[in-house]
Amino acid sequence: MLQLRQRILIIGGVAAGMKTACRLRRLDPDADIKVIDRTNNISYGACPLPYYIEGLYDDIYEVRKTPNGVLRDESFFARIKGFETLTRTEALKINRADKTVLIRHLDSGEETELGYDKLVMATGNEPIMPPLPGMELPGVLPLKTMEQAQEIDRLTHEGKNAVIIGAGLIGLEMAEALSVRGLNVTVIEMKGQVLASALDFSMAAMVHHELKRHKVNLCLAEPLERIEGHDHVTTVVTSKGTYPADLVVVAVGVRPAVQLAKDAGIVLGPTGAIAVNAYMQSSDPDIYAAGDCAECTDFLSNKKVYVPLGSTANKHGRVVANNIGGRYEQFPGILGSLAVKVFDLHVARTGMSSADARLIGLNPESIVVSAFDYAHLYPGNKPIVMKLIVERTSRKILGAQVVGPGVVDKRADVIATAITLGASVDQLAQLDLCYAPPFSNAMDVLHQAANAMRNKLDGLAESLSSVAVKQLLDNNEKFIFLDVRSPAEHAKERIKGATLIPLGALRQKLTDLPINTLIVPFCKMSLRGYEAQLILQQAGFRNVRYMEGGILGWPYEVE
Amino acid sequence: MLQLRQRILIIGGVAAGMKTACRLRRLDPDADIKVIDRTNNISYGACPLPYYIEGLYDDIYEVRKTPNGVLRDESFFARIKGFETLTRTEALKINRADKTVLIRHLDSGEETELGYDKLVMATGNEPIMPPLPGMELPGVLPLKTMEQAQEIDRLTHEGKNAVIIGAGLIGLEMAEALSVRGLNVTVIEMKGQVLASALDFSMAAMVHHELKRHKVNLCLAEPLERIEGHDHVTTVVTSKGTYPADLVVVAVGVRPAVQLAKDAGIVLGPTGAIAVNAYMQSSDPDIYAAGDCAECTDFLSNKKVYVPLGSTANKHGRVVANNIGGRYEQFPGILGSLAVKVFDLHVARTGMSSADARLIGLNPESIVVSAFDYAHLYPGNKPIVMKLIVERTSRKILGAQVVGPGVVDKRADVIATAITLGASVDQLAQLDLCYAPPFSNAMDVLHQAANAMRNKLDGLAESLSSVAVKQLLDNNEKFIFLDVRSPAEHAKERIKGATLIPLGALRQKLTDLPINTLIVPFCKMSLRGYEAQLILQQAGFRNVRYMEGGILGWPYEVE
Repeated sequence: MLQLRQRILIIGGVAAGMKTACRLRRLDPDADIKVIDRTNNISYGACPLPYYIEGLYDDIYEVRKTPNGVLRDESFFARIKGFETLTRTEALKINRADKTVLIRHLDSGEETELGYDKLVMATGNEPIMPPLPGMELPGVLPLKTMEQAQEIDRLTHEGKNAVIIGAGLIGLEMAEALSVRGLNVTVIEMKGQVLASALDFSMAAMVHHELKRHKVNLCLAEPLERIEGHDHVTTVVTSKGTYPADLVVVAVGVRPAVQLAKDAGIVLGPTGAIAVNAYMQSSDPDIYAAGDCAECTDFLSNKKVYVPLGSTANKHGRVVANNIGGRYEQFPGILGSLAVKVFDLHVARTGMSSADARLIGLNPESIVVSAFDYAHLYPGNKPIVMKLIVERTSRKILGAQVVGPGVVDKRADVIATAITLGASVDQLAQLDLCYAPPFSNAMDVLHQAANAMRNKLDGLAESLSSVAVKQLLDNNEKFIFLDVRSPAEHAKERIKGATLIPLGALRQKLTDLPINTLIVPFCKMSLRGYEAQLILQQAGFRNVRYMEGGILGWPYEVE
Repeated sequence: MLQLRQRILIIGGVAAGMKTACRLRRLDPDADIKVIDRTNNISYGACPLPYYIEGLYDDIYEVRKTPNGVLRDESFFARIKGFETLTRTEALKINRADKTVLIRHLDSGEETELGYDKLVMATGNEPIMPPLPGMELPGVLPLKTMEQAQEIDRLTHEGKNAVIIGAGLIGLEMAEALSVRGLNVTVIEMKGQVLASALDFSMAAMVHHELKRHKVNLCLAEPLERIEGHDHVTTVVTSKGTYPADLVVVAVGVRPAVQLAKDAGIVLGPTGAIAVNAYMQSSDPDIYAAGDCAECTDFLSNKKVYVPLGSTANKHGRVVANNIGGRYEQFPGILGSLAVKVFDLHVARTGMSSADARLIGLNPESIVVSAFDYAHLYPGNKPIVMKLIVERTSRKILGAQVVGPGVVDKRADVIATAITLGASVDQLAQLDLCYAPPFSNAMDVLHQAANAMRNKLDGLAESLSSVAVKQLLDNNEKFIFLDVRSPAEHAKERIKGATLIPLGALRQKLTDLPINTLIVPFCKMSLRGYEAQLILQQAGFRNVRYMEGGILGWPYEVE
């Protein structure tokens, strides 16, 4: 029989699946579009779930509503979007030869086959539960579904001690949420820092301070060993300690949900996710993959990466629909851009770190700059610290990490745009960005970072990172760590081992300083630190390097 | 006599002049650098002055302080920056043949000559005072200097009626400032909208509503005729009315301060500002110009423009210093990016409008999209309306205007970056921007605008602007203006002339609608308006065009 209407079957009805279906209906009014999902809770946003637990909204069904308050249920998709959704329906087996999928209606147990011309895998991710004792105990759960969010919310009423395993995005958001809900929160992280795949240590250290400031017990470099309890979790045991727990949130990461694809012989990539080409086609050209089950290509390195995010899932869905609908489009890859709020601190990042760049044979340079997010005399301005990474030879921008209580996402988004379009640091320095005191500075931190980087690349400014200075201090190297702030600032907080000579007095004190010893000046943000370096250099001191980012960017203890 | 040290003379010690001097000292420790300024108040920020009057900070000298609270006076520049500043020193005449400048010390009256190897004109701007009766009256003044800000502040204590002439950046900031200080504020604008050089009418109309909401008496298309009073201003007279005034702020614009350059035979450009090449050199290669006295090139059109802004002045200063210091650098031009806050409304724009684009022979397309600035269920999110302009053939981005109570500057800065780097709307749609609920949506308004534009360019979505729909209404054209929001939303506010059929009921009511008449569906933001169009088109209705931006972007009265 001649098929006139293209039959599109989509497995998974959350972000990528629903986006594919909606866009495809708009492109093709005649297509037979079906979405199947194992659960009832289709088209929900997982990202806002920590804020439900935090208490920022009361109705968990908000995560399934449009901005206008309409529930995105089966009827919504049928009436408004014009396609059918089968919920509580599991895909059991893909028969690629026949182009059919064996499905089971979970409520009736009935099994049947659905044919397809094009199949879309949008099966999402599954939280990783480490294979350690106690993971099965009641009170131990990940946060992925609405039901899990409700269960965590319920447990917050019953206990007072929460342990979070893993200090990634969800782990940190849950640390905030559960602290705000009044629980004692311990975060257990195997690595020596939070957000290890997103931030360098010196930037992550600001998050460490913020967690401690909010009484979160942050345990770094501390692998989990087991979870204990009888009919409910009572204790978490790590390599270093034992922590009481009424609730354990397991947030060590997610893996792509690919069993169905794997069983059907669809090729998985090096990350374990479904391998796709630029058109989001799997190894079977009639089967596409989108969202958290699909592999991505890193835009800069061309390496395969697995960075499951709702923002990418939505873009994937549109690309898949365009390709099925005959409007061929490639997905260009990702930069690993992300943002996260941790109490009063904001974090955003995009592109590569210096270490990432070295891994693929590039020659990176980085710089750390601290600044206020907008005019220092406009009320409400707050500091931010920005790390910029560029390639030395081409001077092209590779990445940025921005952390602080101020506005960070704007800066990271400008850098993401600049990287995508191949901008050099020299172009960044000249960008005509919007300026007015309530929004930015005449020279934004982006311009300041670009110019500081140009000075560094051009040999006009020599600097040391905070990490390098800390090493000098720890190794008891002979150098002068020169605090050039005012006595009032010095009285408020100091770095141990530093000598105070306020910048205004420096020219008068030059003879007090040894001409051949390394001098490392710094201030609050290191604008004055850089000035001090210039004064010293112009007075004949040859071995001067200001400390990048100043005391604001100092990731270690201050007195 | 052999000159070993390069002599650099800079006329004007505010943003561009001081930036030139500071950067040059860093590049050249030996240069003889002198800055002269007619006033005492060097290195001040003019942009924050309205916020002094508003009462957001108490010490006006804040505008001359570093973020660390150090006053940027002559001693600061001498001790920290390492160059000499002569204040209360006027440049009377440039002798280009001898390379000298005749200067007068205003306090002593003494005149002397200063030689230069390179001269930098950083003479800034002067406020335009229209040649109309009464401009000389006490109580009538522009806002450029700290002294004028203090005088306006003093006058706010004495009167209760303020009239602002001109609805540009300063006019609008002063409307907010003086309203907050409790005065009755009237804004007189010759043109039919505020921010006429920055925004299209439909975007400016949101500012009109905001001003009215805050009881500002906004008088558009109303040329000033004269100002009346005896020993102090009492009345402002326009073509349409008479307004009591205890204080008149004249904010109709500024012109470049170029008399000195003109007298010396330096070429002025078509805008009246000093003509410069890409290296910021004037017609005399030993004389540079920077900041508000210098002409700029529009990056997109290559046309000469005059857009004096502190952000540009700082970049100019650095480029001039680099060139004098032997590190040759071009200034790439500007996009006319700017931001302004008007009460609770934020405005940002960059690049060209459709009208700008048509003027230089391009074929522009525009679209208006409304959205929340971040996740609708994260507290504090607010709507924004974005107008995106692209070139039809190349699909390159030309400009954007973003207005709303939400975060607008981030979106305009991304667009400014994208324009600078030659991005197409298709690249914009795929940008990997930072996503988390407190910062953005999984599909940011930037992505939504890009995709809506692609649909429009690809013939997938036909739409009408609010201005076009208003014309249909005003001309009593036969069409169905279809409000597809919920009855609850409709009860709250409505556009006159629209018929309500909620989106969910539309499929059932199709037979009530005439198949050949133009139907214009809309909703709050026009996502549902677009859905309605698709439902109608897929049901055979051929003449359907949704209204862009929805009721949020409707610039006229609502009921």
